Amino acid sequence: MPDAYDVVVIGAGPTGENVAARAVRGGLTAVVVESELVGGECSYWACMPSKALLRPAAAVAEAGEVAGVSGARLDPPAVLSRRDEFAAHWHDDGQVGWLEDTGIDLVRGHGRLAGPRAVTVGDRRLEARHAVVVCTGSRAVLPPIPGLADVVPWTSREATSAHRVPGSLAIIGGGVVGCEMAAAWQALGARVTLLARDGRLLPRVEEFAGGLVARGLAAAGTDVRLGASVTAAHRPADGAPVSLTLDDGSRLQADEVLVAVGRAPRTDDLGLDSVGLEPGSWLEVDDTCRVRAVADGWLYAAGDVNHRALLTHMGKYQGRICGDAIAARARNGEPEITAWADHSAVPQVIFTIPEVAAVGLSLEQARAAGRNVRAVDYDLGSVAGAELFADGYTGHARMVVDEDRQVILGVTVAGPGVGEMIHAATVAVAGQVPLRQLWHAVPSYPTMSEVWLRLLESYGL
Amino acid sequence: MPDAYDVVVIGAGPTGENVAARAVRGGLTAVVVESELVGGECSYWACMPSKALLRPAAAVAEAGEVAGVSGARLDPPAVLSRRDEFAAHWHDDGQVGWLEDTGIDLVRGHGRLAGPRAVTVGDRRLEARHAVVVCTGSRAVLPPIPGLADVVPWTSREATSAHRVPGSLAIIGGGVVGCEMAAAWQALGARVTLLARDGRLLPRVEEFAGGLVARGLAAAGTDVRLGASVTAAHRPADGAPVSLTLDDGSRLQADEVLVAVGRAPRTDDLGLDSVGLEPGSWLEVDDTCRVRAVADGWLYAAGDVNHRALLTHMGKYQGRICGDAIAARARNGEPEITAWADHSAVPQVIFTIPEVAAVGLSLEQARAAGRNVRAVDYDLGSVAGAELFADGYTGHARMVVDEDRQVILGVTVAGPGVGEMIHAATVAVAGQVPLRQLWHAVPSYPTMSEVWLRLLESYGL
Repeated sequence: MPDAYDVVVIGAGPTGENVAARAVRGGLTAVVVESELVGGECSYWACMPSKALLRPAAAVAEAGEVAGVSGARLDPPAVLSRRDEFAAHWHDDGQVGWLEDTGIDLVRGHGRLAGPRAVTVGDRRLEARHAVVVCTGSRAVLPPIPGLADVVPWTSREATSAHRVPGSLAIIGGGVVGCEMAAAWQALGARVTLLARDGRLLPRVEEFAGGLVARGLAAAGTDVRLGASVTAAHRPADGAPVSLTLDDGSRLQADEVLVAVGRAPRTDDLGLDSVGLEPGSWLEVDDTCRVRAVADGWLYAAGDVNHRALLTHMGKYQGRICGDAIAARARNGEPEITAWADHSAVPQVIFTIPEVAAVGLSLEQARAAGRNVRAVDYDLGSVAGAELFADGYTGHARMVVDEDRQVILGVTVAGPGVGEMIHAATVAVAGQVPLRQLWHAVPSYPTMSEVWLRLLESYGL
Repeated sequence: MPDAYDVVVIGAGPTGENVAARAVRGGLTAVVVESELVGGECSYWACMPSKALLRPAAAVAEAGEVAGVSGARLDPPAVLSRRDEFAAHWHDDGQVGWLEDTGIDLVRGHGRLAGPRAVTVGDRRLEARHAVVVCTGSRAVLPPIPGLADVVPWTSREATSAHRVPGSLAIIGGGVVGCEMAAAWQALGARVTLLARDGRLLPRVEEFAGGLVARGLAAAGTDVRLGASVTAAHRPADGAPVSLTLDDGSRLQADEVLVAVGRAPRTDDLGLDSVGLEPGSWLEVDDTCRVRAVADGWLYAAGDVNHRALLTHMGKYQGRICGDAIAARARNGEPEITAWADHSAVPQVIFTIPEVAAVGLSLEQARAAGRNVRAVDYDLGSVAGAELFADGYTGHARMVVDEDRQVILGVTVAGPGVGEMIHAATVAVAGQVPLRQLWHAVPSYPTMSEVWLRLLESYGL
């Protein structure tokens, strides 16, 4: 393998893979540097294994809500085996094969920047003719709670890859990871306690969504505690339960503790100081993913590490645009397409039971951005398609309308089986389809998507 | 109740209800005339009961395709009870209450046109100041097969309302009703034979969809026979099985026979001759649902009866537009909104196992319309979200692109759980969102909707 490439990508997760693939498609040579498994967090310790755990639980829950269906139950060892399959048993042969097929070289080892356009991997030095792209992602933050590190808590990695169902699990954090893993491990048989510092779950989406998820978790048996903070942790002996002290002075014992309070950039051992940046910082980029603070425009950062939208699909989106931009500039052009959706049309599906799906701005966010907005709410459970999907269906939908421009700024839907519904909203938001035009996008009867008709009718169309 | 109204609607199905409600919202008075149940075919003998039968079967099928889930099974009597609930036990009290709440009068009985702006219901004569709207819908066609009428076959009505699972069921017709009812009754325990005259199932959608449905039906145990026509039917005695003779000379016995070969307009006993129209004909209308052939523009027809798009949601769409148009014209205005989606953006979900969902034009239809098109195909089973949804997921997606305008003319998706996916395509097609803009509608990972990314990548974006 050569030591000089057009593009050197640090990190072979989905984002890095997309950057490299688009650069190669644009006629450039590319190498990716990976210190762990090719495929990254998403493939082995996040999206894939978590959804592999959650889908069986959702299928059982959905079947249980349809009169005329009986007997559906979860087989926890089989669910864990299924998860192992989806995590490719933590082997990256398949992804390495894809790199080869795509014409991307791979260097295994820890990549560090070593001045402009240079990356070292152990003894080896790689030179980038056009760009270095940092796609190292993020890691779980461990909050400074006395004793917490000593109890060796789970992070999202252990929560998605554990091979044994703990008898009890305490989860610190009521965000996406906390809520999804509570749903998964509760369904698998653990007694789960979810400790959320805020007064609500899922604080970044519309409030009703967190409310429905809290209700769903509680119905499944999870002890959901809002406004609860952990002040100390202690595990008296290896294998003994952890004892957590809460801010109200009470104590809680659990076989395992999952910490899910946020993410930090994986940039602390990346040689950022060699190019004048601060180790451990998020890398701020423009809409082509070029790092603003570095001269000559050779350094890019895509995916979680740029802190724009910490979601696999947005990382891949950035990766495609970034790879195309590098290829365009290598031809002395400028990219036609920039990653503007990061600002206004970020979708997310939260695979809790029930599911939550959202895109764009919440009402709160839209108001904070100074937009002249109106929210329209509708009870999803009163849509025929939802009643048919599950007896006693409980769900809710909200649409946030830009009153000046008559387009939709955001949509949030919560309820069983709503995951596939959100892309319609994503097309409407990203496509800036005027409300009057949406009136002619007739939802099929009887699907849950008919909530679109109800939202538009409620708006006044 | 008065005998003169601004609007007289014949037929209180979903379409008629929407016409009347929008007219009332526009400040007019309205009466609906109904000879059967308020709520119409959809509520009692079509969408609602059929989907109430199919959803439990789909939930069992979906649960059965997820490793880690076991034991899900159908309880046929409970499924039939569920269906009874969704058909409101064939009582229309709820819908009558809605009419009252909405300010719409109801006259029960058989409505007939009696010259311009007049409708008779038995001895009663209703005068319409602004419009009469025919929303009488359609009925099943009985083909002229010797002996068929004498065996008293099921139509869609009996197939959706039967209270007993027949030991065996022969279905004549491989369209939507035939395929959906084959899936439902096979799941409920009947031995189903599906006889399709064409060489494929679901001949009005992309060919791959019918292929996947044929495979799904066969896997469930249905005997699917393509290119098979029935030449004679005979039931030797009441309660005895029916004997069908096929065009290849073979015979087939079945406890019941469902005829599902097409629909005819319910206009034969409507007094059409009193206004110069032919009884039994479909009523051709313009994009405001005004009957073209009648002078002075007082006669409208919405829903199945105008033969534009025989689907509940399109009937309701037409109903809204028609009611608004009548109200606008009553104010001496012209409607701003017309039912153009009928021509180019009709969506449909077929609730077979697996499901089929389509919107807009198929490749064949687009080519026949002289468009410069390109079809992009993608194996839905290779999308991560689909693999997670069901182990060994089998499905397919096709997008038909207008090469000149760079917009999507149609999308068809087939596979388990695709029903809610189609609305994104409906928004894209009806909203005429340019492909370059769709690139920024990022599908959430890992949902099945990621097939959008794959389709756009395959197109060359």
